[in-house]
This record gives sequence, C-alpha cells and structure tokens, in this order.
Amino acid sequence: MSPSHVVVIGGGFAGLSAAKVLRNRDVRVTLLDRRNHHVFQPLLYQVATATLSPGDIAAPIRWVLRHARNVRVLLGEVARVNVADRRVELTDGGRVDYDYLIVGTGSSHAYFGHPEWEPYAPGLKTLEDALEIRRRVLLAFERAERETDVARQQELLTFVLVGGGPTGVELAGTLAEIARQTLRDEFRSIDTSRTRIVLVEAGPTILPTFPDKLRTAARASLTRLGVEVRENARVTNIDDHGVFIGEERLIAATVLWAAGVAASPLVATLGVPLDRVGRAIVAPDLSIPGHPEVFVVGDAAAFLQDGKQVPGVAQTAMQGAAHAARMILRRERHQETMPFVYYDKGSLAIIGRGSAIADLNQAKFSGLVAWFAWLFLHIFMLIGFRNRLLVLVQWAGAYVTFQRSVRLITNRH
Amino acid sequence: MSPSHVVVIGGGFAGLSAAKVLRNRDVRVTLLDRRNHHVFQPLLYQVATATLSPGDIAAPIRWVLRHARNVRVLLGEVARVNVADRRVELTDGGRVDYDYLIVGTGSSHAYFGHPEWEPYAPGLKTLEDALEIRRRVLLAFERAERETDVARQQELLTFVLVGGGPTGVELAGTLAEIARQTLRDEFRSIDTSRTRIVLVEAGPTILPTFPDKLRTAARASLTRLGVEVRENARVTNIDDHGVFIGEERLIAATVLWAAGVAASPLVATLGVPLDRVGRAIVAPDLSIPGHPEVFVVGDAAAFLQDGKQVPGVAQTAMQGAAHAARMILRRERHQETMPFVYYDKGSLAIIGRGSAIADLNQAKFSGLVAWFAWLFLHIFMLIGFRNRLLVLVQWAGAYVTFQRSVRLITNRH
Repeated sequence: MSPSHVVVIGGGFAGLSAAKVLRNRDVRVTLLDRRNHHVFQPLLYQVATATLSPGDIAAPIRWVLRHARNVRVLLGEVARVNVADRRVELTDGGRVDYDYLIVGTGSSHAYFGHPEWEPYAPGLKTLEDALEIRRRVLLAFERAERETDVARQQELLTFVLVGGGPTGVELAGTLAEIARQTLRDEFRSIDTSRTRIVLVEAGPTILPTFPDKLRTAARASLTRLGVEVRENARVTNIDDHGVFIGEERLIAATVLWAAGVAASPLVATLGVPLDRVGRAIVAPDLSIPGHPEVFVVGDAAAFLQDGKQVPGVAQTAMQGAAHAARMILRRERHQETMPFVYYDKGSLAIIGRGSAIADLNQAKFSGLVAWFAWLFLHIFMLIGFRNRLLVLVQWAGAYVTFQRSVRLITNRH
Repeated sequence: MSPSHVVVIGGGFAGLSAAKVLRNRDVRVTLLDRRNHHVFQPLLYQVATATLSPGDIAAPIRWVLRHARNVRVLLGEVARVNVADRRVELTDGGRVDYDYLIVGTGSSHAYFGHPEWEPYAPGLKTLEDALEIRRRVLLAFERAERETDVARQQELLTFVLVGGGPTGVELAGTLAEIARQTLRDEFRSIDTSRTRIVLVEAGPTILPTFPDKLRTAARASLTRLGVEVRENARVTNIDDHGVFIGEERLIAATVLWAAGVAASPLVATLGVPLDRVGRAIVAPDLSIPGHPEVFVVGDAAAFLQDGKQVPGVAQTAMQGAAHAARMILRRERHQETMPFVYYDKGSLAIIGRGSAIADLNQAKFSGLVAWFAWLFLHIFMLIGFRNRLLVLVQWAGAYVTFQRSVRLITNRH
C-alpha cells in the first residue's frame, strides 16, 4: 500500500512548519504555493524601506525543503478545494488529490468594505507589495525635488500610515529615519527633514496588544523621531491627495495601509462556516466540521483560546501547522486527535534605530535592550545561514552609517 | 555672472564620470536619468542568474554624487534635445536649458530588423531585464517539474543564448552551473543535469575580440560545463518554441538575446548624421557638427580610432565622458578643445566558477588566475564600500556552496 498523501497549501510559516514535522515520515507530502519562495514576513517592512533586498528575507521553498525526500514542492495557484472528492484544483487546470489537507494560506489586507482605497493605500503582505511601497516612497522624494509649487511639495513630503499595529509603527519609525538621516545630504531643492509622517490609529491606542507602560515608551520614541501619532482617529475616506479623518482632510501624496486583514478567499471554497474576516471556524484539533482529514491553520483559521482569537503572528501559524501535521501522523496510527493549545511566547515591536519594546511572559522592557532582543530573535529565525550573515552585515552598515543600501526605484507599472 | 550650466543625460558610467570631473568646479551641473540608480552593468548577468540582488550592483545616483554640491540629480525621462534652443525636453513636459550638453544615454538591444523577436528573447540591459530573465529561467524549471509530457519537459529544460560575446558566454556558463550544481537536489520529477544549454553565434567564432588562444580556452571551458557552442550559426527566426538556424529548428522554451545593440533613440533627436546602429557621428573632440557645446560619448557615439569603432565597454564611456567634461572646462577658459584618444586597458570575460580569460596589453591568460583578476577588478570598480563587501560575501558563499541566494520569481507581468 502506498503511503498516504498529505497536501499542504501555502509555503509560509505554517506550510514549512508542517513539512518539517512530516519530513522523512511514512507519508508522501506535496506542498503547493503560488510563489517559489518563502518570505520572512516580520522583515518585509525593511524591504519596503530600502534597508534589505528581497533576496535577504526570502528563500526558495524547494531549497528550504531540499533534504526532505518525501516532500515535493510544486509551483501552482490553488483555485478551490473540492472537499467532497478530496482534491485541490489549480487555476491552470491542474489537480492534486489528497488523503489529508493542511490549509495555511494566510491573510491579505482588507479595507473594511472599501476596496476602492487599495490603489491609494497599498498594504504590505508580499515582496511585490514591499517593492511597490519602496517605489512610492522614493518617488515621492524625487518628485518633491523637481516640484516648484510649495504646497504640492509639502504634499509630496507627507506620508500617512493607517493602522497603529506593529507594521504601522515599524514603517513610521523607519520612514522618519530615512527622511531625517539617510537622505539628508542628497537633495538640492528640498529639505527632507521637513518631511511629515503621521501614524493614524482608529482605536484608543497604538500597539493595543502591548501593556500600557510599553505603549507609552513606544509613543515617546515615535515622537522623538518626529512621527505624529494620532489615536482615536478613524480614516473615513482615502483618495489621491490623502486621507479624511472624519471631516478633517490630511493632505499626503503617499498613504500606506497597515490596518485590516482578511483570510485568503480560498478558505471560502472549503464550504464551512467563516468568521467576520473570512477565516474558517475550526474544531479544537484544527480540523473542519465534517472533514477530519482537512486542517486549517494560522491566519486562515478562526480559533479561540481563553475566549479570544489567537494572534495573527508567525508563532500561531507554526504551532498550529505542526499540531495539524502531528494529528495526521496520529490518525495514520489510528489514534485520537487532541485539541490545539497555543503557547504565547510574547511579542516584540521595533520602532527605530536602537529602539523597540518587548513583552515577554517573564519580562516587559523597552529601549536598546529590547532592540537587541528583537535583532537577535529575528536573525536567529531567518531561514538559511547565508541570509542571516548578510542581513547582519547590512544592518550593521545601516546602523553605523544611517545609509539604506537598496534605494532602487524599479517595477514601474 | 552665474556659472555655465552643464546638463548630463544619463547616469551610467559616462554620466558619473563626467560629473566627477565637473564636481566642485565653477560650473552648475544637472544630471538627468529616467532611473534613480546607476547600474554596474558588467555584473547584470549575475542578477539575471540569481547570484546577486539588484541592490548589490546598483546605487542611487544622488547618493553617489551627494558630496558634489554643484551637481543636481533629477529623475526624468528625456524626450528630445532641442539643440537650436539649447534645451532638453522631458516626457512629462519638463524642460531644462543648458549651456553645454553631454549625452551619455548608452545603448539598448536591437534585433537586426526583427523587433517581433523581443518578447521571445529578452535582452540584458537594465535591472528590469535581469529580473525578467531570472523569472523566465526559474519558471522554466518549475514548469518542467510539473510537466508530464516528456517532449515538452525537454523543451522547458532547453535554453538558447543568442550571441557569443561576453554576455552570452557569461550567461551560458552560469546557467550550466545552476542546472548541474545549484538545483541538483531540489526537484523530484526532473533531472536538472539533463538541461541543454546552447550558445549560438552567427559569426565564425565566439568572443571575436579576443585572441585565438583565449577563445580556444573559453570554448573548452564551456564544453566542460556542458554548454553546446554553435558557431557560424545565424538565427533566422524566433518564436515561442525556440529558434531557427536556417532550416534547422532548435526547440527551447527559453531564449535569451545577447547579440545586437543600438544607440538610444534619443540620439536621433540631435539632428546629426548617425551610423548604421543609430550612434551620432562625432567630431574628434566628441562634439557634434555645428554644435561645439554638445558632446556625445560612450555607446551613443560613433567614434573611430585606428579605423575601428571603439569598443562598447565601460572604459570607453568613462574615458569619453571625462574627456568631454574636460573640454567643457577648457572652453570655459577660452582654450581650444583637443581630440579624444581612447586608451585600451584590455578586456576580461568570465566563463564560470574559477574560469575566465584575460587579454591585458601586457599579458594574455586564462583559467583560475584570470578569474581572480576578473573578480578583484569588478569588486574594485563596484560603487560604494558596503556593496563591495556584500558582493564579496555572496560570491564567496556561492563559490563554496554552489548556492544562488536570490532565486526568487517576482515581477509577474
């Protein structure tokens, strides 16, 4: 009898974590992704802000899994899952049958029912997104240098970040450093230190998942960098001249979106109940109702623990996918599955050069120590030795010189 | 009286070389380029073959010239030069008046009167070109892995390089290494060592500008790497299943163009006689007939020395642009201009790992020594200390591990 076939959709943190549990076990594994590369999402903002190259934070999925001889990696975009026939259908007409399925397709940005905002305010989920943001940010300074109208020049030198979570804070802090340090000597007509950076958060506070003391430290760091922090400020419209906060117009040539997320539309094809943002409501063992052979993990799954949705971070995806893979191995041995328990290792957010906040279970701290904790954790987690070394070299360079090495405007549309 | 205004079109080797001569002299300089970055073209093939990131071989032009306080860098695409009014007109309606003009707009690839071949056989002149080639090469292997038809699989595993100059040789050698070493363990359905790589040259020999002995060494190196070298083989048609050499069909999913070049179309707007490939025929001092204030340099200029067109390499562009800049300073001092004399420092071509050929005036050699010469010359010439260090680290890594760190399929069209 040939071994059971496990299909994993998505080569993100979830997919790689599942593949590693199933590696060299008595199952055949096929991992499907529409990209050929895994992206280390926590560092995407560094590509968007020209500090790192795409190649520094991404690795070919088939290279990561090259020693897993029972794992096959295929490039293909999944159109739908046919759970009745246990089959995955690709957009190019290809089909892949499965005995078990793990769905780890993550999330994309959502605009709270305003998809028309997307062209004005790109989000940051993929390498292409990061390159598009980099292009817009660098082009704004280039256009300001050639602009003779003072009002329009100030519009070009205004950046609005919508969403005060970790991504919005990281982008705001880094943009401030670029404007005030990196670009300082390079322009002849504009003074880049006049750049205005506004971080807009609809809720009562930025970084809502962090304790109050750390939020205060983050707010102070941002202010020191010259970022205007606007809390309780709900964006009601976005167009090509900036955003509206209620009746107030905030004029800005560049608006970046770091607010809402929604599960991948693929999840809807499973035919199971979804939550408000399109995540599949899963059983305690992460399988879906009526189909114990199908597991949904990470950002694609609605999973409550202590009455709260587990956070949308890499840890959740990795732990959930590893659990699903282990449950598949148990079912192969005719054992019962067990409920998933998420273990919160804590969270970190970086604000700028030498400045971060850390909320670990044992300790809460901010400043340089938190920054070093962030640095070493991320270097440690990065896939592949060579990338780690290169990233460390680039970071050291950026730290010492304030330079950003990857300030290229490419990918014009 | 305000100082004379020198406009330089193009931020390639020519433009930067001119700006460096004019730096902190008593002229105002404006450098115009449609990209924000200088590209180190001799290493473009390494981006196309996934060894280096775009950021490793490119630097923002305004960063390179940040200390040249009399030089202003503007992002803008030149539509035409109005020599009568001494004015450069941009595609976005902008205008820049000049007292002196240096045109260093380089060349693009040309298809010998067959522009319809371009979609099937992209050339390698810009970072976008390099990313497109990288995408096609990596996608061919991914598609072959999913292909069940054996003939189509072999088509996907066949690569044709048209043009046996240094670029064609570099691409062929590197592709062979990727197929036989880098990708070896990562595919489950295909054997990448079966990849067929064909280098097609219309003339009697590859690398025609090198001495016979070195060409023989290069041919032997390519054969050792598994590249088929076809000389006296003129491509008569290209379509989406490969190329025709006379009546013979060579079936290949990926065809890359490294054959013809033509000067930028902008040169034609100068209204002076052009040569066969669109280069401006210049006076001995590199100015154009009737307009001693306009200089054309590098690949944009038709300039004969000893009865032969000077070679289309970085040295020609840099020496010519520096000469033009010095002639402008002489004219400012009411001195006569002098004829340009190109000094040939020799040439190098790389074939693969540890293999290159060097034709220096003093010596001609091949193999590992030539490869080291190539390596250190290119590292030395790369702009910016940080890039140099990073490139060296990546090369060392690629040399030791055979890995290519930047195997990302991005930029889909």
